[in-house]
Amino acid sequence: MTSPVPRRNTGQSTIASVAAEAEVSVPTVSKVLNGRPGVSDATRARVEAVMRERDFRRSARGPAPARVPLVDLAFHELSSTWSIEIIRGVEAAAADAGASVVVSEFSGKRRPQQSWMDAVLARRPVGVILVLSALEEQQQHQLESRSIPFVVLDTAGELPPGVATVGSNNWNGGLVATRHLVELGHRRIAVISGPEDLLCSRARIDGFRSALGAAGLAVHADLIVHGTFEIEAGYEHARRMLVRQDRPTAIFAGSDLQAIGVLRAAAELGLAVPRDLSVVGYDNLPVTQWFSPALTTVNQPLKAMASAATTMLMQLARGEKPALSRIDLATDLVVRESTAPPLSGSI
Amino acid sequence: MTSPVPRRNTGQSTIASVAAEAEVSVPTVSKVLNGRPGVSDATRARVEAVMRERDFRRSARGPAPARVPLVDLAFHELSSTWSIEIIRGVEAAAADAGASVVVSEFSGKRRPQQSWMDAVLARRPVGVILVLSALEEQQQHQLESRSIPFVVLDTAGELPPGVATVGSNNWNGGLVATRHLVELGHRRIAVISGPEDLLCSRARIDGFRSALGAAGLAVHADLIVHGTFEIEAGYEHARRMLVRQDRPTAIFAGSDLQAIGVLRAAAELGLAVPRDLSVVGYDNLPVTQWFSPALTTVNQPLKAMASAATTMLMQLARGEKPALSRIDLATDLVVRESTAPPLSGSI
Repeated sequence: MTSPVPRRNTGQSTIASVAAEAEVSVPTVSKVLNGRPGVSDATRARVEAVMRERDFRRSARGPAPARVPLVDLAFHELSSTWSIEIIRGVEAAAADAGASVVVSEFSGKRRPQQSWMDAVLARRPVGVILVLSALEEQQQHQLESRSIPFVVLDTAGELPPGVATVGSNNWNGGLVATRHLVELGHRRIAVISGPEDLLCSRARIDGFRSALGAAGLAVHADLIVHGTFEIEAGYEHARRMLVRQDRPTAIFAGSDLQAIGVLRAAAELGLAVPRDLSVVGYDNLPVTQWFSPALTTVNQPLKAMASAATTMLMQLARGEKPALSRIDLATDLVVRESTAPPLSGSI
Repeated sequence: MTSPVPRRNTGQSTIASVAAEAEVSVPTVSKVLNGRPGVSDATRARVEAVMRERDFRRSARGPAPARVPLVDLAFHELSSTWSIEIIRGVEAAAADAGASVVVSEFSGKRRPQQSWMDAVLARRPVGVILVLSALEEQQQHQLESRSIPFVVLDTAGELPPGVATVGSNNWNGGLVATRHLVELGHRRIAVISGPEDLLCSRARIDGFRSALGAAGLAVHADLIVHGTFEIEAGYEHARRMLVRQDRPTAIFAGSDLQAIGVLRAAAELGLAVPRDLSVVGYDNLPVTQWFSPALTTVNQPLKAMASAATTMLMQLARGEKPALSRIDLATDLVVRESTAPPLSGSI
């Protein structure tokens, strides 16, 4: 296992030249570089600004990197089986490369706090993998100037060009799930997607619209809703939609967790799945095949995505340029027991 | 956040004295101490033996510890929601202490491999938390000689006295689950417990026996089975037990995952839960309240256990002696929808 090879210091600036220009001492620049305390916010900002302006890149001759290579894996939120699939994928791929994995969460926030950034700068990992979150431009520069590469797993929104990302084909996931329901004969299909600010949520809804459009079916705007990926969101949306007289005959959920909420809402309302309501999940968490009915769901290869992100990170750390900076793994539909043709009376 | 204060070097031995006695150079001892390569197995064993004999303890004046404190959290296996609850508990408690968490898994093995030990020795964490696994005596000594404390979360078997452990009251969990079923009127109650080599599995079965004994009921040895904590084990045991003529009217599972397998087996056999079969899980994973029927289960406070283990580890790292080296958190029963009196004909 090799430590990261930094990119060329394009600006040819050194710690000494940064210190001179920012009018601080060399040890102060070193503290800023390594996320150590004892520097005022104003001084820190001035040093960061100079490093940025001069395109400073830490050289390989800097302080010794950590003796055991670490990969930082940061979640906006650690939740349920979903996160464990990603941890397993990263852990296995990192172990193959002789690296260990530091797991953090941002307590639901989509941008890391400075305390986390400082810890990362101080421990100097091989690289950073961000799950469903992204960096502020200034945070991105902080990592770049320390030659710490990062990869975003899925995307929390538009990323600047050149940022390495691994995702899955969300548009196709939306398309194949909806097409399956249309082919079964469903006409009133609802979609509960993830948060509206996530690209993945929007891509799935576009796939949903395309499948309806291709079948010549109208899109009912009132059957498109957004929520978090958690069980509660699926439950609450489904409760509201399923008590309506013109209730949908099928619901396409944004996650398997949401689908669990939908199944619970249906059971409480005395609706049998799939007889009275078809349900499609998203993610294909291993547990869903054991439900009764076993869940029809879009297979999102979380473990493989995590593994691909780690491999890409290791390439960047070795100073190699990955062939693609954006990889989308394929999604496909796994048809099980929770979908069926609608009752003739309900169409 | 302070780095670990090592215990007193009782033997007063030094790296130099170890090197002299083992007839190797000081750098060789240093390599062994820090898990670095370039030392033959035989030499490594000789150095370890001398350190052990002389009760060597690394002093605080050794090489600088990692600049960002790390806690090593190691699972015998990363699986599903169960692991994420523990990661969340450790991550939160470690973050409060300014430390980050390295997550590893032993691919299902209950003893760490040397490669993991070497990585731990090299990165010098504040301490190590082992989940459902334990160290060989020689591995335990390796950590002790480097002044790296460790805590075992739950126990994979008998631990030497003095090893810090955090668990939960498994015997009580078995008792309250079984008592609930007895009070509902069940007489043929099966128990699917965890692996037989785990203390927690045996304690739960003893609680199960005690509840039956207190009610004057016989224990049917053929209704006590063991398996892994995974869904498949619950499914397979339940399939076998539920096709019998004298099938149990209630099953007490060793984990919520096993209970999911039991629910699936019952559904496949056309048995309604709780009408035809009562099911009790173990763990109280958040998802189980959303099942239909919502699962009656023993609440095992995984996140609190993880947090308590981390706090204990931090105490040990500061050189403090925790008031108790073995903490068991309370378990209690959460009654939901998956348990009911047996059908009168089936008793």
